[in-house]
Formats: sequence, structure tokens, C-alpha cells
Amino acid sequence: MLFARNLEFSPGSEADLDDPENAPRGSSIVIGYGRFGQIVAQMLHAVDCSVTLIDKKPSQIELSGRFDTKVYFGDGLRIDVLRRAGAEEARLIIFCADDRSIDAAALAPIVEAFPNARVLTRVFDRRQLLAIDGAGTVGAVREVFESSIALGAMALQQLEVAPREIEDVEMALRQLDAERLGMQISEGDLGAGRDYRFVAGGGRQAASVLEALRERRAAAKRAREEAEADQAA
Amino acid sequence: MLFARNLEFSPGSEADLDDPENAPRGSSIVIGYGRFGQIVAQMLHAVDCSVTLIDKKPSQIELSGRFDTKVYFGDGLRIDVLRRAGAEEARLIIFCADDRSIDAAALAPIVEAFPNARVLTRVFDRRQLLAIDGAGTVGAVREVFESSIALGAMALQQLEVAPREIEDVEMALRQLDAERLGMQISEGDLGAGRDYRFVAGGGRQAASVLEALRERRAAAKRAREEAEADQAA
Repeated sequence: MLFARNLEFSPGSEADLDDPENAPRGSSIVIGYGRFGQIVAQMLHAVDCSVTLIDKKPSQIELSGRFDTKVYFGDGLRIDVLRRAGAEEARLIIFCADDRSIDAAALAPIVEAFPNARVLTRVFDRRQLLAIDGAGTVGAVREVFESSIALGAMALQQLEVAPREIEDVEMALRQLDAERLGMQISEGDLGAGRDYRFVAGGGRQAASVLEALRERRAAAKRAREEAEADQAA
Repeated sequence: MLFARNLEFSPGSEADLDDPENAPRGSSIVIGYGRFGQIVAQMLHAVDCSVTLIDKKPSQIELSGRFDTKVYFGDGLRIDVLRRAGAEEARLIIFCADDRSIDAAALAPIVEAFPNARVLTRVFDRRQLLAIDGAGTVGAVREVFESSIALGAMALQQLEVAPREIEDVEMALRQLDAERLGMQISEGDLGAGRDYRFVAGGGRQAASVLEALRERRAAAKRAREEAEADQAA
């Protein structure tokens, strides 16, 4: 019915509905086609962005071939390899390899050589996040950070913590973690911001974030009770 | 104001508002206190669940000590070590170590020995998910799966894909991935379900999931246009 009515107002709109999604969105280069790169590549395929895959492990290339995926051989940190892979026209260059040695000195020349491309990268830990700071990349994710939050959330579910509270804990943790990272980067010291963690008994800063969340939940509970009392009156 | 009005209806409710959150929620044992276990432990601390930490790397224990965290030394796969850590009373035993050798044969005796505890585990990849199948654990997360989705989402943002569409892609990928895993587990074959991936040009199954999402988005767009047209009329 929605469809029929729509035709009255904008005839012919159906034919071009698919356009923005089907149009080539430029191309991307994914370096490292293991567990990490495979998922990133799938997401790019899903929006019809063309993907060139590079890996320096022959075994990975061979395995991928058996799954009908063409992966090119090469070291994706080399400018000449990237150029041959089409980096000058690429919109994205994404480092997905398991390589904790990649730092700002390795990435900066790539960012500079291919100004049309945005560079994103997987990192090992917060130490590597500090090490790539200043390279000009537009995004980075610590490789086990998100999965550790997911397993933590599963654990809280098992303790029958309410979904809403789990969300709050996750949000608070992300906020504290981001602030801690900011301090670690600006001070160049991994020891900075150690209060910005949830510890047994509550870190000083963490405790106040959690307290704010508790107050928010308490206020929501009071509002619910009030609404129920109003209905009962 | 909510607060003042609430007092009229349920006086004294403020004092016990904190109760469910402050009550001890039982205890947990986290095995492996590296990048992964640290985040899981923080989330448990955030809900005041007591946490006993075990690691078998002295260097990790020493490092954690410098960050004011007590980590016990031991092999968390051993029943006697777990028992000494209080596994009989624990509600959760969570394996967060970087150990892709853990399989159902290693986990099943632990699940059996401590019936009060739910067991969760980090795994290396889908191969290890298959290997732990049948052990009786209640949850597992592939260690880089969530972060790879997060980096993929960042990549789509850079391509200016709409947030709603990124959500759809993520949902579709998770759905396909779960179905593929189900087939891999039931057939005991990693090659099963290879159609359940987004590939260049679209996998058969993936294409139909994406097509369904495209139709949903198109319907939403038509509804929006209709609403706008109604307002303009």
C-alpha cells in the first residue's frame, strides 16, 4: 500500500531506488586476509565496493584460493606494492594484518603517497595506538578490544544483570577508556590515567562515572514507580 | 522534581535503591589477564562482582602488580588450581587467555567439576568454536571478530555509507555468519556454508539477505517520501 501510494507522488522513483547502493563506491585495498581482513572485506563487498586483497603469507593465499577468493602476494607496507594494487585511485587502504610492529614511521609515508585514500588500521593494543599516533590515519581498532567487551557483556548476562545496566557499564567503560587513552597519548606514558579503570572497590574516576550511571538508573526507576503509582491512584 | 514527587508515593525507597547493585553478585574467576581479560575483569568490577585473576605468565603478573592488580599464578585449565581459586563457589569461570589449543576435551571436565559455575571462553577463530562444541560452556567469542566488524564499519563510514545501511550490513553479516557457523558445526566441515558470505558480486545466499535489506531500506525511503509528500500537499 505504501508502495502504491508512493507511485502517485513520485512516479518512476522505483527504477533509481537502487542507484546509490549499486553504484561503484570507489575501491579499497585490504592488507592481510586472515580472520580480521576477511570480515572487513565482506563488509566492503556488501556495499559493492571493489576490494583488492594483499597478503604476504603464501599459505593464506593458497587457503583463500580454495575458498574462491583471489588474494595477491606482497608486502602491503611497501609503496610500490600499494601503487601496483591501485592505491592512487583507492578510497581506502586498510591494514588488517597481525603485525604489531606497524608504527607512525611505517604509515606516514603511505598516508602521504596516496592523498586520495583514507588509511585505517588494526592494532595490537593501546601501546600500538600510541605508536601510530600522528601518522594521519583516520581510524584504528584494537584487535581484541571489541570481543573482550562482548564476552564481558555475556558474563554480566549470566549474572542476570539487566540489559540496560550492561549497556551502561559498557558505555562507561568506553568513556573511561577513551579518556585514559587521551591522557596516555598526550603524556606519552602508558601509566597515565590509571584511575580511569573499573577496579575492585571502584577506581576513583571510574567510581564517579558509575555513580552517575547509578543515579541515572535510580532516577529512571523512580520515574517508573511514580508512573505506576499515578496509574494506581 | 521527579525525586520530590516520588517521595510522596514511596517514602524510604531511596535508601534501598542501590541494593541490587551493591549486593555481592557472587564471584568470578578470570583466567588470563592480558588485553582481553583486563577488559572483562573491569566489567565485572563495575557491577561489584568479585574477581579472582589467574595467569601463567610471570611477566604479566609482575606488570599487573605495577598497576596495583593482584594476579595469581597458575594454570587455569587445572581443576586443582581452579578449586583453590574458589571455583566451587564461583558463578563464572571465564577463559580469556590467548590459547587456541583449548578444546572440548579440556573444558568439559571443568564444566562438570564445577556445576555452580557458568563457563565462558575467548576463542581464536571459528575453527576453535567448532573444537569446543559440546563442552557445555555457555558462551564464546572469537577474539578478533568484533573488532573486525568495528573496523569494517569505520571503513563504510569513510565511504559515506549511511549509518542505517552500515547497521543493516552488520546485521546481515552476523546473521549469515551465524547460519554458516551452524552448518559448519553440524557438518563438522569448515567448507560448509561458503555461500553464506558477502563476496565480490554477492554470494548466492548473501545476495538474497542483502536484497531483503535493500527492499527494507527502499520501503523505508518510500515511507519517508510519502510522509514528506503528505506534508507538502
